[in-house]
Amino acid sequence: MYIPAFSNISRAHKIIEQYIHRTPVLSSSAINNLLDADIFFKCENFQKVGAFKFRGATNAVMNLTEEAARKGVATHSSGNHAAALALAALNRGIKAYVVMPENAPEIKRKAVAGYGAEITYCEPTLKAREETLAGIIEKTGAVEIHPYDNFDVISGQGTAVKELIEDFGSFDNILCPVGGGGLLAGTSISAKALLPDVKVIACEPIGADDAYRSFMTGEIIASVNPKTIADGLLTSLGKRNFLVIKDKTDEIVTVSEASIMMAMRMIWERMKIIIEPSAAVPLAAIVEQKVNVAGKKTGIILSGGNVDLNKITNYFK
Amino acid sequence: MYIPAFSNISRAHKIIEQYIHRTPVLSSSAINNLLDADIFFKCENFQKVGAFKFRGATNAVMNLTEEAARKGVATHSSGNHAAALALAALNRGIKAYVVMPENAPEIKRKAVAGYGAEITYCEPTLKAREETLAGIIEKTGAVEIHPYDNFDVISGQGTAVKELIEDFGSFDNILCPVGGGGLLAGTSISAKALLPDVKVIACEPIGADDAYRSFMTGEIIASVNPKTIADGLLTSLGKRNFLVIKDKTDEIVTVSEASIMMAMRMIWERMKIIIEPSAAVPLAAIVEQKVNVAGKKTGIILSGGNVDLNKITNYFK
Repeated sequence: MYIPAFSNISRAHKIIEQYIHRTPVLSSSAINNLLDADIFFKCENFQKVGAFKFRGATNAVMNLTEEAARKGVATHSSGNHAAALALAALNRGIKAYVVMPENAPEIKRKAVAGYGAEITYCEPTLKAREETLAGIIEKTGAVEIHPYDNFDVISGQGTAVKELIEDFGSFDNILCPVGGGGLLAGTSISAKALLPDVKVIACEPIGADDAYRSFMTGEIIASVNPKTIADGLLTSLGKRNFLVIKDKTDEIVTVSEASIMMAMRMIWERMKIIIEPSAAVPLAAIVEQKVNVAGKKTGIILSGGNVDLNKITNYFK
Repeated sequence: MYIPAFSNISRAHKIIEQYIHRTPVLSSSAINNLLDADIFFKCENFQKVGAFKFRGATNAVMNLTEEAARKGVATHSSGNHAAALALAALNRGIKAYVVMPENAPEIKRKAVAGYGAEITYCEPTLKAREETLAGIIEKTGAVEIHPYDNFDVISGQGTAVKELIEDFGSFDNILCPVGGGGLLAGTSISAKALLPDVKVIACEPIGADDAYRSFMTGEIIASVNPKTIADGLLTSLGKRNFLVIKDKTDEIVTVSEASIMMAMRMIWERMKIIIEPSAAVPLAAIVEQKVNVAGKKTGIILSGGNVDLNKITNYFK
């Protein structure tokens, strides 16, 4: 099983840079003062489709041979990867087949449909999703693009922290959330290649702590009935992702739902930017003092900004 | 009655630039495609205290003579000007006395108190606010800094569009909201001095259309029982402000509450930034096609981003 080296991330960056936003990096003196920190937020909530996922999906789509690409790409996803793959396919001028659970939020359906993908709805179970996807691939010959356990996807996700370090120099700590491990694996490879002394710390909700438990035991422990408001972090670690994480991630810390909500609100109120709950998890780790940031320069990947404003009372009561 | 010239705005800019953020300018291809527009948003929601008001308050405070400054500054305000004046005074190391209605939102009270201002609460009527302020000024000798009908405040507010034009060149249209007219007067002076052919268009909620009616009749018509979710735009035009607006603003257009909400939501969802309802009023004018933007380059001042997240269900239902 191949895993990407930093050279693959550099190459990915050259391929995708014409399609992605080089997102801004913001800091907040109010938050820094409050937490006695020096934090640089890499704003992937401003990325196209509203999340870092567009980097990996674009790299995967653009790396297909002409012949493979001709038959299109396919995935099952209820979230940001579906929209990312749909837009990447649109940019290449090929078809995207997306299997979505029939209970997927309307806003996500609309985004995916708006990018011209062909959506097939199925029952909201992993089995139904996988079977429906297999059927579509058999019929169409489309290439499956896995949301995180994919060489090119991991390489693409590693470009976000590469930009952060290119634009803002050295860091002591790099923090990012972990779900399937695409962002974390790419970030770990990039950060360690560019800054050998940096600490890469993954942050995870306590209610979906499979990555933490996998990291501690050395074996992938699947996510069973995870419960967290950070709905981007419900998945289990991918195999390629875990190989990288075991090797290059320094630490995984877990945080409570209350801290996630507090951190998310802090960013909305103080920075006037919209992030989704998953993106608030690293700042929650600082709120909980799970990461020592005093006197250190800390980079955080704000992974995305897709929230359903119709359900906003879930976040702020 | 003196009104500022562009030279006063240039001078204000030199004085305040060390205190303010030179705020970023964002655009959204999604919004541009949707509205067939080419819009550049000047993000004063990212300004210190979360609104353009900090520019004018800082200029007014920094322009005081040593002798006048020694006794502090005073105002009555329930909104962004109170926080702006408090922080400007803190930066100069002088006292700020702020009269707030006793029903002012807790978040505003906290912000003003957090900057070290001395708050006096009064009944929530204009009469009580003015009388309480007069009493404080008599006792302390503090200088009143009016939120908009003030030469230095107008000069300071004019620096936002100056930055926009310096950073992004020529524009066909400049849009901003109008309440008391501080931002509009400063913007009109700056924009017309830098771009003689630009159209400056003020945008106002139909439920608080005193500026529109004043502009059409040539006489200030006071705002009586205004009703709008754009709570920064409830005040009547100032005298100095109206002199400038009559001379230099090209047009005032009014928009419905529904359009304001739609425009605000569009910016939150598509741009992932938080703006307050008042800041959405110019985009609402484009949504309503009150302003012709096709084939034109349009600048919008996003005036602020202070919303009470506890009352967020007022905005998104």
